[in-house]
Amino acid sequence: MKMVVSLLLVLFLHHGVPISSFSLQMAPFEDFQLLAPDAKEDADRIIRSAMNTTIVYDRLAYMTDTIGPRFSGTPALEQAIDWIVARAQEDGIIVKTENVMVPRWVRGREFANLIAPRRKSLRMLGLGGSVGTGGTTLRAEAIVVSSFVELDRQKENIRGKIVVYNQEFVSYSETVVYRGYGASRAEAYGAVAALVRSITPFGIQTPHTGSMHSSNIPAASITIEDAMMFARMQARGQTLQIELYMEAHALLDAQSRNIILEIPGCTYSDEYVIVGGHTDSWDIADGAMDDGGGAFVSWEAVRLIHALGLRPLRTIRAVLWTNEENGARGAESYADNHASELIRHSIALESDVGTFSPNGISFAGSSDARRILELIGGSLLSEIGSGNVSGVSVGEDVSFLNANGVPSGSLNVEDVRCGSDDNNPCLPYSHAPYPAFDEDNFLKSGYFWYHHTAADTIDKLSSRQLQHCAATLGVWVYAIANLPFLLPR
Amino acid sequence: MKMVVSLLLVLFLHHGVPISSFSLQMAPFEDFQLLAPDAKEDADRIIRSAMNTTIVYDRLAYMTDTIGPRFSGTPALEQAIDWIVARAQEDGIIVKTENVMVPRWVRGREFANLIAPRRKSLRMLGLGGSVGTGGTTLRAEAIVVSSFVELDRQKENIRGKIVVYNQEFVSYSETVVYRGYGASRAEAYGAVAALVRSITPFGIQTPHTGSMHSSNIPAASITIEDAMMFARMQARGQTLQIELYMEAHALLDAQSRNIILEIPGCTYSDEYVIVGGHTDSWDIADGAMDDGGGAFVSWEAVRLIHALGLRPLRTIRAVLWTNEENGARGAESYADNHASELIRHSIALESDVGTFSPNGISFAGSSDARRILELIGGSLLSEIGSGNVSGVSVGEDVSFLNANGVPSGSLNVEDVRCGSDDNNPCLPYSHAPYPAFDEDNFLKSGYFWYHHTAADTIDKLSSRQLQHCAATLGVWVYAIANLPFLLPR
Repeated sequence: MKMVVSLLLVLFLHHGVPISSFSLQMAPFEDFQLLAPDAKEDADRIIRSAMNTTIVYDRLAYMTDTIGPRFSGTPALEQAIDWIVARAQEDGIIVKTENVMVPRWVRGREFANLIAPRRKSLRMLGLGGSVGTGGTTLRAEAIVVSSFVELDRQKENIRGKIVVYNQEFVSYSETVVYRGYGASRAEAYGAVAALVRSITPFGIQTPHTGSMHSSNIPAASITIEDAMMFARMQARGQTLQIELYMEAHALLDAQSRNIILEIPGCTYSDEYVIVGGHTDSWDIADGAMDDGGGAFVSWEAVRLIHALGLRPLRTIRAVLWTNEENGARGAESYADNHASELIRHSIALESDVGTFSPNGISFAGSSDARRILELIGGSLLSEIGSGNVSGVSVGEDVSFLNANGVPSGSLNVEDVRCGSDDNNPCLPYSHAPYPAFDEDNFLKSGYFWYHHTAADTIDKLSSRQLQHCAATLGVWVYAIANLPFLLPR
Repeated sequence: MKMVVSLLLVLFLHHGVPISSFSLQMAPFEDFQLLAPDAKEDADRIIRSAMNTTIVYDRLAYMTDTIGPRFSGTPALEQAIDWIVARAQEDGIIVKTENVMVPRWVRGREFANLIAPRRKSLRMLGLGGSVGTGGTTLRAEAIVVSSFVELDRQKENIRGKIVVYNQEFVSYSETVVYRGYGASRAEAYGAVAALVRSITPFGIQTPHTGSMHSSNIPAASITIEDAMMFARMQARGQTLQIELYMEAHALLDAQSRNIILEIPGCTYSDEYVIVGGHTDSWDIADGAMDDGGGAFVSWEAVRLIHALGLRPLRTIRAVLWTNEENGARGAESYADNHASELIRHSIALESDVGTFSPNGISFAGSSDARRILELIGGSLLSEIGSGNVSGVSVGEDVSFLNANGVPSGSLNVEDVRCGSDDNNPCLPYSHAPYPAFDEDNFLKSGYFWYHHTAADTIDKLSSRQLQHCAATLGVWVYAIANLPFLLPR
């Protein structure tokens, strides 16, 4: 591909590093030719290639089915990483791995039972990072609260009890604080354990795990149904007795790896455009949606560009981070290892909120960069509906780069909007603006229905949507890599 | 209440029993005054009373929360029956119980694991009536089929294997044959066990139990996700190894009881209008929806009529059958015990397909009876939207009465339409004609999402809808009990 750079590049030194940079003082960038003459043609080739092969779905299905959960510190995660590396080498992509020490938390055997007013075995999942019950079955009266405000009001009645949080689901970001801080706040009032209603708008007796902040009392998630039942029982004046057994414990850190899949830039090879997702999953989830899909569409974006023989100006890296779920050590490690390069990272895009129908990216960066991205999206992706630039939020893994000044973004998909953002209250999915609403979409919607559960399986994803996501990311990163300058910060 | 019978009653003998009967030869019944002058006023009183109290929800929530599953042959079912009897006596209703010997099937401990191509613990539920695995863990290669047609095609490859049925959900009545006959048909080709994809349009790794026809090989339900995964694995050429352990076994029959709640007729006290549901549930389900709701709205219909001091011409009976789920012995027993009365049963109504938003009844009986019911529904229930008369299907329990000639019906509710009838393919619930579609309805819809699962809990029901169902049944049975004649057969 021939790249015509039709504006004056200002090369200057920043921390002693020569970089291609855009000078705001120069001229309004609308006047420049931001996109190469063949940018649209290249984008269309990427899109056509993506929509023409089911390889990303087939690979993700194979890996999630055959290897299953890929929890940090387990051989299965390393097996998955080996498998991805081998396939990417077959793709002819440059593949590197970087060692990362990751936390090793072990769930062990666990159970919870309601003992009174009746005996019932509870569906539960210990929260990631929780301590265990010390080899014994903890048994205590339970008290149900619907909020931290109510916990505080009841602080004199907490000591020695198991606190059950029966908070309503408002949005993920708002409600997840109960999973995060439920145990530590209950512990502060003398509770012996915390049971947190799963962070989801909907379940079918479905417990959801997830990480929690450090606490000395054990904590587990329970189902919506059971949390609501406990609240009804308490409202009737029935005394609740619950028993909890958890072998959860931490081991020494284990070694894992980030994977870096690279297409070298032909002009600014030491400048980078990043796209990525994470390879690890929770121990109970196949992690097709969270975040096998995100990792694989990032990989696929790079594979498509490589397979088409397209040569970007800057180096494109798909970074498949390890250990997002319970430590983000992969993201931290990448930011550390590549600290000196971060000034030459044009953008870091992440896909970690599902690979359903993409509509664009959420972006955290300067307004100048946003306007450039809007031009790219509008020019190259509006036809497939995924060229929007919205929001300001980014995902966990790129947040480490964003904190170091790297303009960052997150692939947005339609139905994850429900509950993912405080400004978007959870709506019935049928109200969501599906490009083509159909039963298939309906049943497969709901990222947070499956999030951190055993139901995060490949059947929740569609090949077409994965291809659409890969096409979208491929076009974004290739166009950004070919800008005349690094995205302005 | 004063009942004006404004048409000539033809009293004649049938099998030596004098009954109030309608003679088709007499005159078109449209000319008669079918409804008493105060019928509309009485119906409105029943409706207002029903909508004015949450007692049916409160009672059902209390019972399902406090007692939990009510499986045939268990003390919990008898405890629930005792509790209902005691409450109904407090209501001042005449309460009788009739002993019924019911099957006693015990699930025991059970598990299934995928062993190859990877190890995975499977969510499963042994099917009701299944045999166990003989005290050992059965381990065999699995073969996946998507239909009985495919099973037949593969008949040479079945011997010694575990057959996995991965049939698509089309409708409950069409698809449930795989649960019913999957084991026996696999056994005929030499299979050692059968695993059946749960009979539901949707799940979140949710196994559904249910009854099966007799077979000498063990059978269990697995989740949609796992069944689909096994099919993908087989399609890839991966060999599946599965292990299954089930302690399932039958014990001697145990004693249970039907409950009969009665308001004596003031004129034709030996003629009956029946409304009912079943008290028992599966062993793993609280049975709020199936069929606590149906039993309790039937009871509530009678309680409302009694509490208003309304005196029907004929005797109204709420029959709360035992053992619908795995034997229907309660229904069989009622039909046997009351065989001589069945000719004087005007109608038998059942509620066993959920107590969501009612829209009328499905009716199996003569076209003359149907026209009478249409007149009643149109006159008394159209304002609350539950006066329609449709279909020809009736539920399991009243089918024993219908087989003996009793005109029979089933309370219809809106969202159960999905998949409940071969002529109504499963539509997205948002397409259903909700009177007032809202998120609450959306999330609570889907009878078959929860059917025979641990998620059949009271939170799936709303008090308003239960009250609406009770009002509807109350109006139907009171009006039918006050007809000048028994419903024509």
